[in-house]
Amino acid sequence: MRATVMHGAGDVRIETVPDAALSESTDALVRVTRACICGSDLWPYRTMDHDELGRRMGHEFIGVVDAVGADVHSVKAGDVVVAPFAYSDGTCVFCHEGLQTSCLHGGFWGREGVDGGQGEAVRVPFADGTLVALPVSADDALMPSLLTLSDVMGTGHHAALAARVAPGETAAVIGDGAVGLCAVIAAHRLGAERIILLGRHPDRIALAERFGATDVVRERGDEGVERVRELTGGLGVHSVLECVGLEQSMLSALAIARPGGAVGRVGLPQEHTIPQALETFYDNVTVGGGVAPARAYIEELLPDVLEGRIEPGLVFDRTVGLEEVPDGYRAMEDREAIKVMGAL
Amino acid sequence: MRATVMHGAGDVRIETVPDAALSESTDALVRVTRACICGSDLWPYRTMDHDELGRRMGHEFIGVVDAVGADVHSVKAGDVVVAPFAYSDGTCVFCHEGLQTSCLHGGFWGREGVDGGQGEAVRVPFADGTLVALPVSADDALMPSLLTLSDVMGTGHHAALAARVAPGETAAVIGDGAVGLCAVIAAHRLGAERIILLGRHPDRIALAERFGATDVVRERGDEGVERVRELTGGLGVHSVLECVGLEQSMLSALAIARPGGAVGRVGLPQEHTIPQALETFYDNVTVGGGVAPARAYIEELLPDVLEGRIEPGLVFDRTVGLEEVPDGYRAMEDREAIKVMGAL
Repeated sequence: MRATVMHGAGDVRIETVPDAALSESTDALVRVTRACICGSDLWPYRTMDHDELGRRMGHEFIGVVDAVGADVHSVKAGDVVVAPFAYSDGTCVFCHEGLQTSCLHGGFWGREGVDGGQGEAVRVPFADGTLVALPVSADDALMPSLLTLSDVMGTGHHAALAARVAPGETAAVIGDGAVGLCAVIAAHRLGAERIILLGRHPDRIALAERFGATDVVRERGDEGVERVRELTGGLGVHSVLECVGLEQSMLSALAIARPGGAVGRVGLPQEHTIPQALETFYDNVTVGGGVAPARAYIEELLPDVLEGRIEPGLVFDRTVGLEEVPDGYRAMEDREAIKVMGAL
Repeated sequence: MRATVMHGAGDVRIETVPDAALSESTDALVRVTRACICGSDLWPYRTMDHDELGRRMGHEFIGVVDAVGADVHSVKAGDVVVAPFAYSDGTCVFCHEGLQTSCLHGGFWGREGVDGGQGEAVRVPFADGTLVALPVSADDALMPSLLTLSDVMGTGHHAALAARVAPGETAAVIGDGAVGLCAVIAAHRLGAERIILLGRHPDRIALAERFGATDVVRERGDEGVERVRELTGGLGVHSVLECVGLEQSMLSALAIARPGGAVGRVGLPQEHTIPQALETFYDNVTVGGGVAPARAYIEELLPDVLEGRIEPGLVFDRTVGLEEVPDGYRAMEDREAIKVMGAL
């Protein structure tokens, strides 16, 4: 079958790889119909050392079940399913607690003999724990929004929960990428009265406003912090949804949090430490979040997508076929596209 | 009047200073009957540069109201009162939210013309917002436990809240100082089923066990982490109450937190950053806490003290008069005493 393989910075290829096939009795074989490129795929796209063997890519996908192992009971051949960006057994202590990203037997797509999502098919380990069947056909108009449940919408929701967004309060979202935009949706959905987006791309800002952002701060660094303080009577915001992961964005996040507030971080950290340890101590600012247990949130967010109350699929502004995926990486890296969907 | 003044590392003196007196209409004048030395007083005791003018010391005290300004309504002359370690107006947005340490007009004892608690008397700013009247006489046998409400018991409680201690779960307390011991009380009070103390002083460990610690880990660093992992089936603990503030203790705290767990830090940070930014991200470990709003917790904890359900006053193992306070510092620094009370 054909699948996406990254061989180094800027070097993404579509190659013929071994066909996905059932291996364990708890596996499902899924023919991928939609996949996408993640902002986090851009980190290796910028920095990966050359590797002739390469690395299978893609961790967000929807597909149709082709076959299941003998011990799979929750999905069957023909089902349309969405996969979260990590697979999980559904039975361990952490899965029971809704933290499937820490599953004792789980893992991430594209590693250790597991297929990536940006390809024709995927062997899905622990299909019962991992997949969620969708009550729609594979070409439903809601596909883009449903696809965001695999990662970015769940990740935005996770940021909002970790930042303790609450009705009537003020939230700030740092970053206008797909996760930041979904974080705006999540903050709005949880009742934030005021949502300040820190971002600078006009098309993304327009989408954020459509999603519920009430204020936009285009300045960065100290200027951006100052602007947020002005907007909040000098106090800062209750909830900061950090959707970038850079040192500068974390510094801004901590600086605009109000005493007693919380930063929910979902941008993959590019630094080894969290700064401002003493300032946040005196201000009682909590730092939470991390890699989002997207699996836990699919059931919760699904009705809102199916009934049209949220439209996270609007973050996709380009669709490509499988052979065009490398150009999709380029388009996202060049900021030509917010997020690229593959119709495979 | 006589009061404690620190002039540099190891240089604590009892000196004659200007008498405390009412200044603002919202002040109360309190004659101090009990005060104590805090673990945090030991940081300047170790490191302060020589300062001939000196620094007034003490932020934990109980006393009798001598006089009040015209705008004070909640306490009156003759009342026995406890003061938290920060004064606060009781009316600002943060006071209303129960975060009095961030009071817009508040501050800390011993700074900017405000008396310290280790002296004969204190002018208390914002008496209505700051003081809590106690329904006991000034020489009540409960004085030691009541005095802990000014700081260490409230701080231990804050660590437990920030670490999200919950009934039936496992907590670890890092540090066997007075705050750590009060954190054990707080974790027990909030229903933790298992409380692991990380400490190494036999007398303190004995007290921790009396307070509810179920397990003791005497090893430090990687060995201590390994031991906690063994005790928790490899998973780590739900709640970590970090009561030290050193880099090593924070590293241990983050390493023993279970995925999805929380670290409540109340030890004054001696580092500018929080380590393990990426590990805690993958594990979704939350870092919360900070300087405890002790004022917010006095009313909540007071009934438990008055009715004898908790006995935090047992952390005091030495009592001194005012002129002996310098020797009290020495005794705490030399680990001869856990915590020293002044009967003034």
